[in-house]
Amino acid sequence: MFRIIGLFLMASLGLIPACFAQDPGGAATLASNPQLPVDYVWVLMCGFLVFFMQAGFAMVEAGFCRAKNVTNLMAKNTIDFVVASLVFMAIGFAFMMGNDYRGLIGTTGWFLHGSNYDVSRYLVFFWQLVFAGTAATIVSGAIAERLKFKAYFLYSLAVSAIIYPIYGHWVWGGGWLSKIPFGLGHLDFAGSGVVHTVGGFVGLAGAIILGPRFGKFCKDGKPKAIPGHSITLAALGTFILWFGWFGFNPGSTFSAHQLRIAVIAVNTNLAAAAGAAVAILLVFAKTKKWDVGMMLNGCLAGLVAVTAPCAWIEAWAAVVIGAIAGGLVVLSVYFWERRGVDDPVGAVSVHGINGVWGLISVGLFADGTYGLGTTDGPLVRGLFYGGGAGQLIAQVIGAAVCVAWAFTLGLAVFKIMDKYFGIRVSPEEELKGLDIPEHGQPAYPNFYARGN
Amino acid sequence: MFRIIGLFLMASLGLIPACFAQDPGGAATLASNPQLPVDYVWVLMCGFLVFFMQAGFAMVEAGFCRAKNVTNLMAKNTIDFVVASLVFMAIGFAFMMGNDYRGLIGTTGWFLHGSNYDVSRYLVFFWQLVFAGTAATIVSGAIAERLKFKAYFLYSLAVSAIIYPIYGHWVWGGGWLSKIPFGLGHLDFAGSGVVHTVGGFVGLAGAIILGPRFGKFCKDGKPKAIPGHSITLAALGTFILWFGWFGFNPGSTFSAHQLRIAVIAVNTNLAAAAGAAVAILLVFAKTKKWDVGMMLNGCLAGLVAVTAPCAWIEAWAAVVIGAIAGGLVVLSVYFWERRGVDDPVGAVSVHGINGVWGLISVGLFADGTYGLGTTDGPLVRGLFYGGGAGQLIAQVIGAAVCVAWAFTLGLAVFKIMDKYFGIRVSPEEELKGLDIPEHGQPAYPNFYARGN
Amino acid sequence: MFRIIGLFLMASLGLIPACFAQDPGGAATLASNPQLPVDYVWVLMCGFLVFFMQAGFAMVEAGFCRAKNVTNLMAKNTIDFVVASLVFMAIGFAFMMGNDYRGLIGTTGWFLHGSNYDVSRYLVFFWQLVFAGTAATIVSGAIAERLKFKAYFLYSLAVSAIIYPIYGHWVWGGGWLSKIPFGLGHLDFAGSGVVHTVGGFVGLAGAIILGPRFGKFCKDGKPKAIPGHSITLAALGTFILWFGWFGFNPGSTFSAHQLRIAVIAVNTNLAAAAGAAVAILLVFAKTKKWDVGMMLNGCLAGLVAVTAPCAWIEAWAAVVIGAIAGGLVVLSVYFWERRGVDDPVGAVSVHGINGVWGLISVGLFADGTYGLGTTDGPLVRGLFYGGGAGQLIAQVIGAAVCVAWAFTLGLAVFKIMDKYFGIRVSPEEELKGLDIPEHGQPAYPNFYARGN
Repeated sequence: MFRIIGLFLMASLGLIPACFAQDPGGAATLASNPQLPVDYVWVLMCGFLVFFMQAGFAMVEAGFCRAKNVTNLMAKNTIDFVVASLVFMAIGFAFMMGNDYRGLIGTTGWFLHGSNYDVSRYLVFFWQLVFAGTAATIVSGAIAERLKFKAYFLYSLAVSAIIYPIYGHWVWGGGWLSKIPFGLGHLDFAGSGVVHTVGGFVGLAGAIILGPRFGKFCKDGKPKAIPGHSITLAALGTFILWFGWFGFNPGSTFSAHQLRIAVIAVNTNLAAAAGAAVAILLVFAKTKKWDVGMMLNGCLAGLVAVTAPCAWIEAWAAVVIGAIAGGLVVLSVYFWERRGVDDPVGAVSVHGINGVWGLISVGLFADGTYGLGTTDGPLVRGLFYGGGAGQLIAQVIGAAVCVAWAFTLGLAVFKIMDKYFGIRVSPEEELKGLDIPEHGQPAYPNFYARGN
Repeated sequence: MFRIIGLFLMASLGLIPACFAQDPGGAATLASNPQLPVDYVWVLMCGFLVFFMQAGFAMVEAGFCRAKNVTNLMAKNTIDFVVASLVFMAIGFAFMMGNDYRGLIGTTGWFLHGSNYDVSRYLVFFWQLVFAGTAATIVSGAIAERLKFKAYFLYSLAVSAIIYPIYGHWVWGGGWLSKIPFGLGHLDFAGSGVVHTVGGFVGLAGAIILGPRFGKFCKDGKPKAIPGHSITLAALGTFILWFGWFGFNPGSTFSAHQLRIAVIAVNTNLAAAAGAAVAILLVFAKTKKWDVGMMLNGCLAGLVAVTAPCAWIEAWAAVVIGAIAGGLVVLSVYFWERRGVDDPVGAVSVHGINGVWGLISVGLFADGTYGLGTTDGPLVRGLFYGGGAGQLIAQVIGAAVCVAWAFTLGLAVFKIMDKYFGIRVSPEEELKGLDIPEHGQPAYPNFYARGN
Repeated sequence: MFRIIGLFLMASLGLIPACFAQDPGGAATLASNPQLPVDYVWVLMCGFLVFFMQAGFAMVEAGFCRAKNVTNLMAKNTIDFVVASLVFMAIGFAFMMGNDYRGLIGTTGWFLHGSNYDVSRYLVFFWQLVFAGTAATIVSGAIAERLKFKAYFLYSLAVSAIIYPIYGHWVWGGGWLSKIPFGLGHLDFAGSGVVHTVGGFVGLAGAIILGPRFGKFCKDGKPKAIPGHSITLAALGTFILWFGWFGFNPGSTFSAHQLRIAVIAVNTNLAAAAGAAVAILLVFAKTKKWDVGMMLNGCLAGLVAVTAPCAWIEAWAAVVIGAIAGGLVVLSVYFWERRGVDDPVGAVSVHGINGVWGLISVGLFADGTYGLGTTDGPLVRGLFYGGGAGQLIAQVIGAAVCVAWAFTLGLAVFKIMDKYFGIRVSPEEELKGLDIPEHGQPAYPNFYARGN
């Protein structure tokens, strides 16, 4: 611990000399493998798409919330990625992808300095950064319309410095979860757990500690709908997220030489479609209305669920996994509402619950046609394809650890902040909307507003 | 027929064993051609851009329609791609790209199962799927603001299961139109006909059967403008479409080893610019107003028109083709309006008419510098470059077949639906807007609305 | 001069025969270098992202301006790229990238015709075109809400035919600035100067000649805030620009074989984050409000500043450069406001001032790990890395030339137009908003508007 703090201080003071044993210019790396350019293009382009999901989350959240809080929503959807970028560069990346310490944490690579000033390290950093930023921004949906702005700085810092990278180290950085002796160890191809379950359950912790918005529940505890201010933005955001997911999932091969990327792209798309279809039909069966908000969340739920298994399944399984996700998201939204949890955009249901479902589905549907991204090596095989229960057990363990880790640390972060400065805005501010008290700017000053 | 139904049932019950003669993992495909990764990256990235056009169509349509119908517009612009994804996977892809039966239809590849569980087949599927989804969503603009929501499920199904894939088979799947004995057979590089004319003329059929919206025509039959609710969204959507078209056209080489992609990108852009310039100047000459809506449609018209010829022409020809498209779209909008056809976003003029113009332009401007995407083989040459009338005849035949096919089947689909359940919403619903009766959600509950 | 005019006429009349000594089909180019497909994919995809920045500029500008002018803003943000496309193809590209005449100007390549009908020339054209379009659209922010629409045609023409390409020739086309005998000559990796300073200072000239909008300054000269109509659009636009910048900067290697692209992507992102963080914290320190508009401009300022140095610096330097940009943009906005210059979106501060800062930062932070995009050759080294003052001097000279060139020609263009037809709309039109008098269409006819 002291060693880490000491390194921070030295690094931030520039006392650690940059050591160029590595390859910052890239010529030596290219010479060692002339096939790399296409992989760099693939990873970077997919990473750019994942970055663009920030815009998608911002639009979905704005669409599902009220006009009086939109300046605030834009502020926090930007600031979470800003904080994540800086903090993940300083600390988070080292915890996640640095040299492993007893399967628990990485310990090298602070500030991308020294031997990390290297084209291949920067490439890994870029990829992991856009994922860390996604985890951070998922949280914000669950705690929308009532959290103080400065709390966003702090929870974003906690997610991108600690919660995401340490759990990420366990699964993707060579840590213990990837090595548990069931199946091929816990597997999460593109982050149903590492990104989405983490984000969703930190969000659940925040939503519980904050309590519901005014007007969300009647005196008898019955939930009331608080309609968002723009279905257009919600739909635009969903399309942007769907688009970005084509980077998120196929790009997670980290190599264009895995032609399996074509299968991954198809599976990603089919799960989204199936999730949307089931969600809208299910609500229609109950209410006789074609519920657009639920359809959009069904689409996102399918995407979240297919994120873990997308590389190891066939197209029809993607449809099944997505369809189940579309059902789960509807049930989950009702479930949390009945328990008094107010999650304005459904982030817990979309990302938290369906992230868990995605992890488990690997242990069921993985069909033994693809392995761990190497040309030889073992193939991933779930229960339905004669793989026995091993992989399924590994998936359930990983999902349980993920939920426990994210929810516990989320509770701790929000509790501590709440104790020190009170994380909820005042009732007057909440009723008026956060835009003017926190930011001095209404989002739409040229239009007359109405509604609560 | 019985055989097909039987195959469906067997496939859906999982009775057809997956046969792995093909290559689901991709290692064998890579070994057979180590150059493939860059082609996969190219096709997938371009396909992702084409997918993103769904967001563009949604925004353009929302922008050009009224606020009271926007929830409905978002619902249908999502559901058409959802339905297309599922149906094209189940049936459409097999009709389009399966083994050819007498030049008429493909007959293998249901549910992407069996020997189609293969990286290269999935790649082709992904590409054709995003095209099928585009055709389906084009229709929705022409029939906006008055069609019952459940009719979207059904016409999307018809377009993505039958209308698009069968015509697509004739042109791109080895079918008869690609082999007619004029020029090099009917040619449509990226789908002016297969996607845009098909979508536009199915839309025309729908608009005719539905009839005009209330208030579109005065008692004397004179058309009135019904302004859309957001020029911002219309412009945003147009930019997204323009962006997506850089996937649509250059990606249609299906190979990055065709360096002609640089020429295709330039031509695509120039046609868009020329179309926009001519449309806005033409309307200005008549009205002395700089008409933004028409400029945006002129831009899209240029893009549609250049889609068929983009690979076979020089930059100046792209400008000419786009400029003519910009003029055509203005004339066409007036033409259909005068005939009592109400096409809220101009989809028939942009996609239908200019798709035809694009097909024909191949027979005029193809300059004999590029062929059919192979290194040797014949070059495409039109009338102006000494190619004689052969290619032009092939183009006219194809365009005529395309219009007849799309319009006839469109009429049939909408007629049959209308007969069974009446496809138009009630007058009360139309006047109030579809959002609340169909979906229970206004799009913008926090703003006061006005206008019709 | 006469020769040039003569060539124009001949080219436009088709009298110059297309000479196919070059390679329009691409097969010969591929044969000469089988590694090219990945470079073409990289450059085109990055170029598509840069194109998409047009949507970002449109949304940022709309967001920061008033609802009554939004139709106008959409019109001009489209028309500037339309004009740029056509004019740069006809003239600008030849001035910029044609055969050099005494270090001053290019002289070949009109209309992309003749020997320019070649896949590699078209690729260079596409890249430079999207950059030229960016320079043109930057201007429009500074002169928003009061310029006559036809003036947009003319200044876009001037920027894309003369101002951008000739300065661009000096830096990127083999012209004199790239060869001044200090350091390695003036360096501007991705265009802090060529694109952003040029755009920003042409905009400054326009803003000065137009004068401030009504209501921007009190009688005592004190500036008043004129809030934009949609923070949502401003944030969406910023995310789109950030996304597009991942094409702008990394794509400027013009080759995927430079694996340094990974470093460039990381640096680009970190500068954006640092700029946003500093800008919002700085304004908070002064006003106790979390100012979203300033945060978004801080983000863009960081992006502009890192554009010149992005290839030659380490991650921590990108943070420092971005942080300084975030401070500079705040000070600059206040500076110009105090001097009576009304720049509605802050384009001068974001692009003009931070473009200069970006150029200078190369001479300070370039760390000698990367050169000019070739495997051998000299490395770029600034003052802080033992490079002496040579590179810094080259950067200061280039920045001064850039500012002088853009501002002087900007003044000339707007002065001449003003003299001939008066570039400012009438006071009545300005107060009512430009949408109805210029375009006949309000942007949001379905909502009640308020505010000035």
